[in-house]
Formats: sequence, structure tokens, C-alpha cells
Amino acid sequence: MTGCEDMTEDRGCALGRIEQMIRYVLWSSGAEGIVVGLSGGVDSAVAAAICCRAISSENVLGLTLPTKVTREDDIRDARELSAMLGIRHEILDIEPILNAYRFIPGFYESPVLIGNIMARTRMTLLYYYANREHRLVCGTSNRTEYLLGYTTKFGDNAADFQPIIHLYKSGVFGAARDLGIPESIISKAPSAGLWQGQKDEDELGITYREIDEALESLERNGWLAKSPVEEKVLSLVKQNEHKRKTISLL
Amino acid sequence: MTGCEDMTEDRGCALGRIEQMIRYVLWSSGAEGIVVGLSGGVDSAVAAAICCRAISSENVLGLTLPTKVTREDDIRDARELSAMLGIRHEILDIEPILNAYRFIPGFYESPVLIGNIMARTRMTLLYYYANREHRLVCGTSNRTEYLLGYTTKFGDNAADFQPIIHLYKSGVFGAARDLGIPESIISKAPSAGLWQGQKDEDELGITYREIDEALESLERNGWLAKSPVEEKVLSLVKQNEHKRKTISLL
Repeated sequence: MTGCEDMTEDRGCALGRIEQMIRYVLWSSGAEGIVVGLSGGVDSAVAAAICCRAISSENVLGLTLPTKVTREDDIRDARELSAMLGIRHEILDIEPILNAYRFIPGFYESPVLIGNIMARTRMTLLYYYANREHRLVCGTSNRTEYLLGYTTKFGDNAADFQPIIHLYKSGVFGAARDLGIPESIISKAPSAGLWQGQKDEDELGITYREIDEALESLERNGWLAKSPVEEKVLSLVKQNEHKRKTISLL
Repeated sequence: MTGCEDMTEDRGCALGRIEQMIRYVLWSSGAEGIVVGLSGGVDSAVAAAICCRAISSENVLGLTLPTKVTREDDIRDARELSAMLGIRHEILDIEPILNAYRFIPGFYESPVLIGNIMARTRMTLLYYYANREHRLVCGTSNRTEYLLGYTTKFGDNAADFQPIIHLYKSGVFGAARDLGIPESIISKAPSAGLWQGQKDEDELGITYREIDEALESLERNGWLAKSPVEEKVLSLVKQNEHKRKTISLL
């Protein structure tokens, strides 16, 4: 018997430590609650569910911030998840804010350019609610996208704490099953949702399973690539190193 | 004779190292230029001037992003500085973007709430230009505001490199004189410009001279406060520690 038998194997124990971490950052900051962006995907679902284990679900706010490229089923899944977790849920269309950017003289749009504006606008709104209601912003980045740098700097990776940053994408799916996240969320193809039909694995040109295996091998072997897949993954890790760096004083 | 006699005392030597750092981050990122937000204040003026010493001023873009609370003389000073440095300068009114936020159902406004949205909207626009034109975003945070946490997280403190982060506010004024920054920029009262009539020293309730003296003493004495002013400064440093932290993997 250990103190960790409440869930399958090591994951339960890690979750317990994460819950303590959440209570500690909340207490030490003096904040009164948490706000988390709910995309309808598995990462934010797991992050929100962990928050609800750590503190009363009454103090967790879920925000869904769709645009015209957001799928209806993602909004529905976010709403159903919120009902299941018993948290307050708000849905705010951010398309009018994106349109205000589009009025900038000489504005030129591409999927990546507007995708980055979306991610940063969502961050701005999460912090608006956090400021207004004395909450902390819960991040929803996992270890795979963090290491790969598959993220918008100061956008979806920006938060006050990151409860699933230790989990590879495969580990997020495992945690989702443990936590009873609805199957409709678990079974959909992972997408950053920044443009219509976007699928992470198509964009990366490699499956999450391959990426996670490569990352685990690279971390075990001192970041020495031993296959073409590992070389590709390592080059992404290196290329996006700047997204993981902080300021250092001279 | 040292390699550093091009400017008064140590500052010239430090500036030389910063210029090398800028050329290195630019080269290693593969970016083709720099974008810097020009508020009309002394921090951004010094940061931009250092960029123009590091690389050709043709490759530096200055963006001024006013709102309805921005002073006309700040815009004029930013324009004159850009002409002096020989850099491209664009002025974009961000009030329409702020107004789009104001249309959110239940939107409630306070100077701090909208001030944080301003800072994050400016960051989003700086990165829009950076993404579009393969530039890096130059930060304009100084050591005093960085340590104090007198900044919007993921807003004005968000950048790809920070050329004046080693300088206390008093050091920024010294560098401004060395670099020939116009007197109208040096002599105005420091302001974050987030609301009308805002003055940093009024808001902080303490002068920059007192803050810098306290910070230098605290850094020298292992962060042990030896006076009421140092206690006040130390409490701000502690309270805003979260703004200086990065993610760490478990």
C-alpha cells in the first residue's frame, strides 16, 4: 500500500502531486480561483478536470473562445465537459476582435499569421477574466508540444501554472481515460484549431505516437538522435528552443 | 587602452557586448530584422538606438501603437527619434481593437483591466509584424521594472531579446545621454502610458532614484532589507516573482 493507490499505477500519484501544486500556487498568489481555456480538445479537458480535483469546481471557470473556423462539435464538447465537471462555462466569439486586427492598414492574412493572433487574443481574454475575478490562468500545454515548440509564444503557452506539462501527448490520453473525460473528446483528431481542417499530425508530418517515442528516446539518450524520425524531432526541439527560454539578467 | 574606450566608462563596454548579443540572436534565429515598439519614452528609445548600432538601421522597424489616452507629444517624439535613427516607423491606432474587446458581453472596464489588454494587444501586433516580415521582437524592459515586476505579464515584458534588461532605470537615462537620445524624451516623467496622466513614480509611490538605490543595496546584501524603503521594494519584488518565472518540467 502506498499513498498513491487511488488511480492506476504512477499516474495517480503524479496527479496527486499536481493537485497539491495547484493548491500551493493558488494559496501563495492569493488568487481566489482558476480560469482555463476549453477548446473542446483533450489537453484542456484534462487540465480542467485536474483543477476540479485540486479545488472546488465552483472556483473553476471554463472559457471557450471560438472563431469562424471553430467546429461546432468542439463547442458542444466543451459545454458538455463543463456540465460534467460542474464548472461555470462561458462562450465568447472572438471573431469581432480578429476583425478589428483585419482593419489595420495593409493587413495581410495567412493561416499562420491569423492563427498566432487568435492564440494571443485568447491569452489576453483569459487574463482579462483572471484579472477581473482574481483568478490564475491554468495552462494546457503538454510535454510533447512544449518540447517541440508546437505552440504560439505568449499565446497558448502563456499561463500562471501548467498542470499537464509533465505529460507527453500519449500520457494525456491515459490521464483522460483515468479521469473519465468523455469519449467524444478523447477520440477526435488532435488539432490546434487555428484553421479549418487543421490536424496536428498532418501539419507536423508525423504521428504523436512516433513523436513521443522519439522524445522519450532522445531524453533517455542525452538528446542524441538515433534514427531519421529522432533527427526530425530533435531539429524541431532545437529550432523552437527560444519559446522555452526566459529572460536572464547579465 | 581597452577594447571599450568608445564610450564613457563601463557603459560603452556593456553596450558593445549587447550589440554582439543582438547580432548573435538575429543570426542564430535566421530572422532578417528587428521590430521594436516605440512609446516615445526613454526605454524604447535606448533599446531602438542600441539595435541600430548592432545592425543596419534599414533592418529596424519602429511601431508606435497609440490609444485615445496616448499623448500627442509621445507620438511626435517617437516619430522624431525614428527619423534621427533612420528607421522605418509606423503608427497604428489600436483603439479599434480595444473597442472590439469592449463589445464582449458583460465587459467591465477599469484602468488596470484595459491597460493590461493594451499591453497584450501591442505585444500581439509586434509579433504580427515580426511573423510577417521575419523579424525578432526587441523588448524594452529595464532591470528596475523587471525586478519590481512593474509590467504586464505576456504584454510589454514579452519579447525575443531584452537589450536593456541589465540597466536600472537610472542606467537607462545614462545610456540615453551617451546615445544622443533627444532631450524631450529624456526629460519627460516616466509613464507606462496605460491611462491619462499616469506617472510611474506616482503609481509606485516612490521615486525611481529611491527604487534603484534600494534594489542595488538589496542585490548587494543578499536581498536583506535594511530600511522601510527597501522593505517596500523587496515586497514588490517578491509579490511579482511569478512574472519572472518560466515553466519547468517535472
